[in-house]
This record gives sequence, structure tokens and C-alpha cells, in this order.
Amino acid sequence: MSLYVMKFGGSSVGSAERMQKVAQRIVEKKLAGHQCVIVVSAMGDTTDELIDLSKQITDRPSAREMDMLLTTGEQVSVALLSMSIQQLGHEAVSFTGWQAGMRTDDGHGRARIKDIKPDRIMKALDAGKIVVVAGFQGTSDEGEITTLGRGGSDTTAVALAAAVKADFCEIYTDVDGVYSTDPRIVRCAKKLDEISYDEMLELAHLGAAVLHPRAVEYAKQYQVPLVVRSSFTNNEGTYVKEEAVMENGASVRGIAYDKNVARISILGVEDQPGVLAKFFNALAEHHINVDIIVQSGVLNGKADFSFTVTLEEMDRAVEIVENTRSEVNFDEVTSETNLVKVSIVGAGMVSNPGVAAKMFDVISKQQASIKLVSTSEIKVSCVIEQSYLTEVILALHTAYDLDTNQTVFVGGPKDRR
Amino acid sequence: MSLYVMKFGGSSVGSAERMQKVAQRIVEKKLAGHQCVIVVSAMGDTTDELIDLSKQITDRPSAREMDMLLTTGEQVSVALLSMSIQQLGHEAVSFTGWQAGMRTDDGHGRARIKDIKPDRIMKALDAGKIVVVAGFQGTSDEGEITTLGRGGSDTTAVALAAAVKADFCEIYTDVDGVYSTDPRIVRCAKKLDEISYDEMLELAHLGAAVLHPRAVEYAKQYQVPLVVRSSFTNNEGTYVKEEAVMENGASVRGIAYDKNVARISILGVEDQPGVLAKFFNALAEHHINVDIIVQSGVLNGKADFSFTVTLEEMDRAVEIVENTRSEVNFDEVTSETNLVKVSIVGAGMVSNPGVAAKMFDVISKQQASIKLVSTSEIKVSCVIEQSYLTEVILALHTAYDLDTNQTVFVGGPKDRR
Repeated sequence: MSLYVMKFGGSSVGSAERMQKVAQRIVEKKLAGHQCVIVVSAMGDTTDELIDLSKQITDRPSAREMDMLLTTGEQVSVALLSMSIQQLGHEAVSFTGWQAGMRTDDGHGRARIKDIKPDRIMKALDAGKIVVVAGFQGTSDEGEITTLGRGGSDTTAVALAAAVKADFCEIYTDVDGVYSTDPRIVRCAKKLDEISYDEMLELAHLGAAVLHPRAVEYAKQYQVPLVVRSSFTNNEGTYVKEEAVMENGASVRGIAYDKNVARISILGVEDQPGVLAKFFNALAEHHINVDIIVQSGVLNGKADFSFTVTLEEMDRAVEIVENTRSEVNFDEVTSETNLVKVSIVGAGMVSNPGVAAKMFDVISKQQASIKLVSTSEIKVSCVIEQSYLTEVILALHTAYDLDTNQTVFVGGPKDRR
Repeated sequence: MSLYVMKFGGSSVGSAERMQKVAQRIVEKKLAGHQCVIVVSAMGDTTDELIDLSKQITDRPSAREMDMLLTTGEQVSVALLSMSIQQLGHEAVSFTGWQAGMRTDDGHGRARIKDIKPDRIMKALDAGKIVVVAGFQGTSDEGEITTLGRGGSDTTAVALAAAVKADFCEIYTDVDGVYSTDPRIVRCAKKLDEISYDEMLELAHLGAAVLHPRAVEYAKQYQVPLVVRSSFTNNEGTYVKEEAVMENGASVRGIAYDKNVARISILGVEDQPGVLAKFFNALAEHHINVDIIVQSGVLNGKADFSFTVTLEEMDRAVEIVENTRSEVNFDEVTSETNLVKVSIVGAGMVSNPGVAAKMFDVISKQQASIKLVSTSEIKVSCVIEQSYLTEVILALHTAYDLDTNQTVFVGGPKDRR
């Protein structure tokens, strides 16, 4: 007998019919002799509908009241999924975040889990019940209802798996597992049997939507054995774990991309000590997340800097940089959009110095110019113009021996919560 | 400065627009220098929509999971109403049942309030905030989410008013107050300025939908000063209190009716001691609520009994009576539908013996035959055929001097939760 945490996203429980299929799947696990803790997201478009309702009232709802509003979505899901399981003749009990003992800090809309007191869950499991927990939500010490922000239900599942010492944490989604790259672009993309936490973390950060980075971080921290698999098929899925076997000795595990990237360049900056800190402190004070930062060489006592931010934050970032003029001398601030960050990820890279060079070579052969580069031990990211995305990804996929003979069927929209 | 509890039903908050009007109304109260605790129901048809969702999954959902499902309706309302108040520039904070300290027993779907610990409410009021509480819900000692059943939000409001020692508990609805009878039947029905708890309790029990009997009971028990008034107008409303002044010395305050009534007759019952107990114990064991019970005289050692039940329980009640044949001898069980129970209510009745006689007289003049009669100190109920309802009510209204010169505007559907 193993203890499974199984997480189902919004599209997996998007209708009564899908809910019943998910229930069937859970009951099969139970009948195979296992204990089950289920984590569910809000049904289909529920969250968007609730957000729309709030927008009819105010453009700037308080974060506390938004949490109060949005957590109802998952509460509806747990009730209906429990009913679906009961309808199949099995005992089930649903819990909201506070009932499940999900304790968070008080950061409404982006709370972090502090600890989990799974007493009620364990008691229900001991009584032979299937436990259904609302994802994405918790309560603060003051008894306030909080939400975990994007990827919250993935994080709930992994954190719960750690708290109840689950043997497996299965993330059910609308794809078969983690792929070598986006199968919508590369039809012969390869489903990975295994991937390490670090690689998955890089892929998730770099744009692979299948798992949220916070959930992967949590899984790595607590060594939770993660499985990403399809809600709709019985295919094996991808195991995410500490050490993953690289199948054919290849150094690159996967290719990710992220279109939500804008480049900002500060040109002709007077080369003084602490100049860089002045820019980036100002940005940090305004909670602007900066990703890649590149400094060119100094020429005639002046340097150029470039960095990337998300598209939404670009205008504000430019404004903040302009406002530093009183402290720093520079010629000009420019910004650029219609970019994409393409990244190759693989734990084998560190011992294989030719990997990055090959990437630059492949990209240049596609006539795309590389705007920015960033590297770590297990990834190389290049920012290029978006119009080159498809050719570049296809070429990289082939160059790193990731192509398979099989064509991937690409399903519906991604579960994104 | 007074402390008000204000309760708004589902149709009062049925859309973002109505929500904003309600918020406006609350803010006016606040600006007049008062403290406000608001109780809200689920928006418009939300509850029915949630029930429909559950029906797509199962015909027999567990009561616990239904409570988990339905309580989300009020949670959405409190979040949106708080946002609406904040949008008007005032501080507001929403609470679910458990956050508001609503402690109930564990009777899912029909829980009774055990006690209220309004610490968080008081703290928020002291901080100058408008408090918005989800009606209809609470939690048991075991931390289970419960609902109070029909009329739950009225009951929440009255119980909260008692717990926070409110100066007034205002029930906002889609009518102007409590009327002498249903204004949809009698267009010159009179809005009552005052009514006693006992009279309101009888009217509520006898079919007046404006307030739920449990809420009135609670108000009487804790002497909560109740006001029933319109969400849509600034009219005065009806005060419900211990002693109500009868305006023109009339003995009848109001006329109620209830179409949800079926008559069951057991004919030719062998007259033995304890026979009646056998029938009604059997019915009670099956949780069938019996209303009026009438026994005819004994003829040749045989008697006839009649009693009323709700339409939904009629078939089951007949079956239960049939099953007592092994213990009791009787000739036949019959049942009758298309009936209505018409009741006159008034505290002045007890000292005025002609009141019941006048009722029988008025009904017989309308050619309607009286099937069953039941009386108490402050009411007389007669069961008649439904086809006579309108004429009988109109005639009674005139006979007891309740007609006014004004014609009542009758609004939309009733708030029923």
C-alpha cells in the first residue's frame, strides 16, 4: 500500500462529466490498494468568471477580498469531486485549506506556506476515506483566508505530499508529461521518462508551463517524488526526482521558451563605482523583477547595460530608470519587444563545454541575431527576435538529438493553476 | 450611535449593480454615525445553480458535501459586497461563518446555532470597519462546515444581532414590510407598522414568506428588535417586537395562506386506546411532519381521523399508515390535494370569541367547504379547496376591516433564503 497525492487541474475537472472521469481514476487507485489525497483546482473558467464579477464592481479590489472570492472556486470543486467519488460507492471527504491545516503567511494573493498540520487528513485516511483538498488556498495565523498565487494548486499538492509523507505526488494535466520542448512547435518532441529537480526547475522558470517553479522548488527541498502525467490517458508520465538518468548520454534534456520578455538598454552610462547598484536598487524598490543582465565593455569611460523584464513591467521599468538621472549620468534608455528567450537545459551540460557554442552556431545559421545571453551550470538562454522562434527551436531540437520518430498529439489548453 | 445588523437577501444582491446599490445604502447608515454588521445571502440564482451542478453528478449528494458546496454562494456575496463598500471609500471586511464565530451543531443542511463568538466582528467594528458576514452558514465543534437550512440568513442576522447586542436587526427584502395579507391577491392589503413576535411567528408558520419562523423565534427568545423593510425604497417598514399596538382595535392582524398542504384521512378506525399514538409514532419515526390533526366522533366503535402533511410527504405518509395495518384495524386511507390552508392571525383574538365564527361564516358565504380547522390563542386556520383561495382571502380581508384605500405595488420574486 502506498500513499498517493494526486493533483488535478482546472481543465481536468472542467465539467461534471470530466469530474466523474477523474473520480473513476481515483477509485482505480484506491481499488489497487492505495491511500489517496486529492488536490483540485477550480473548475475550468471559474476563476476567470469570479475575476470578471469583481471587475464589474471595482478595478482595484483589495487582495484580502479577492482571496475570499477566489477560494470559493476550489471549494466548489472539492465538494463536487467528493460527491462524484461517493457516487461510485467509495467514502470521500472534502477539506478547504483551513480544514486541511494549510497554514500560510498573510501575503494575500501570493501567500507562502508556513507549515501544514495534516491531522484531519491523516484521521480521514486512517478511516479508509479518500481525502479531497482544495488547492491554492490556506489560512494565516490570524484566521484570514489566503491564496498561494499562480501555480498554487501544484504547490499545495507537493507541500501536502511532503507533510503526509506521500510515496508519490502525481500532477495530472492535459499533456502526457514533460516534453523535450513544446510539442505544439516540434511535433516530434520527446516525452521524458525522467528529469531531475534542478532541470525541471530551470525548464519551469524558463517557460515550460507544465509545472510551476514553486512546486518544483518545494519538491526538491522535501525530496518529494513527483510524477507529471495525463488526466485523459494511462500513459506513464514523467518522473521528477533527484538524479535522473539521461537516456542517450545527451547533454541537453529540454528546450524551453518564454515570450514574456522585453529588453531594456541603458546606453552611454558614466562608468562610476556603484552605478549598476543604483539602477537595480531603484528597480527592486518598485518590485520590478529583472531577469538577464548584461554589461558591455567600457569605451571612453562609458558603458552600455541591457537587462530583461516582463512585458507588463517594461514601461514602468523605463520610467524608473529615467528617474535615476539625478544620480547617474547616461545618454539614453531604449526598450525592445517582440522577443523570445530560448533556453536549453540539461544537467550534463556542465561537463560538456561545446554545448553553448553549438547553440550560438545553430541560432546564427537561422540568421537570428542573439540579443542577450545568460548561462548557468545547467542552462543556456538566448534572447532572439520572436519571428525566428519556430525555426530556432526546430533546429536546436534536431541539433541536440532530441527528435523522435513519433508525432505528439497536442491536446487542449493547459491547466494553469 | 446605534449598532445595526442589516440583512440582504439573494435578490437584493442579485447582480453587481444591485450589490452597489446595497453598498450605497449601507454607507448611508455608516455616514449617519452608526455601526453596521451586514448579513448577505448568495446572489440571485447561485444556490439553484450549485444544486443543479450537484444533480449532474448524483441524485443523492451527502449532506456534508452539499454544505461544502452551497456555502460558497454566500462567500462570493460577502467578498463582492465588501469590495463594493470599499469602492465607495469605506473600510469593510468580510467573514465566512467560521470566521464570524457562528457555532452550530453538526446537523448538515439544517444545523442549529449553538453559540456565537463574535470576537472578530467586535474587533473589526471597534476599528471602525463595516463587517460583512456570510449568512446561512456556520461550523460545528469538529470544524465541519454547516448550513442552517431554509431561512438561514434571516436566522444568522437575528442571532448575530443578539450576540453583538445590536440596537436593531433590519431584514431588507423586496417588499416594503409585513402586509395584512399577500398583496398579490389583495391589492389594497395594508402594510403593518408594528406586529408582535407571536403574531409574526404564526404568520410566518402559516405561509407568510417575508420572514422565516426560526428567525422570528430567535428574535422573540432574545428580544431582538426586528424591522422588515424594502431594499429598493426608503419606506419605513414593519417593526416586529414584544408588544405591538393594534391600530384600530381590530382583532385580526393578518391573513396568511399555504398551498403546500395535503389532507390524509384514515376512515373506520377501530376505537381502541392508543390507536392515534400508533399512527403518529409511525409517522414521527419516519420524520413526517404532521400539521393539523382532527378526530371525528366515534360511531359504532369506529372513528375517522384526518391530518395534513406537505405535498412532498403525502405519498410516503399514506404508505406508512398502510403499513400499520398489522397493528391497527381500519377500513381505508384516502388523500386529497389542491387544498390551501387559510389562517387569520391576531393577538387580540383570544379576548374576542366571535372572530372564529366570523371566519367560518365568511368562508361558507363563498360556497367553500371547510375540510379541517385548527385554532390557537392567536390564530384560526381553515383548510379549503384551492379554487376558492382568492375570493375567500378578499372576503376575509374586508370582513376584518383590513382593507386600505391604497393599492400596493407588488415587486419581483421573494428573497427566499
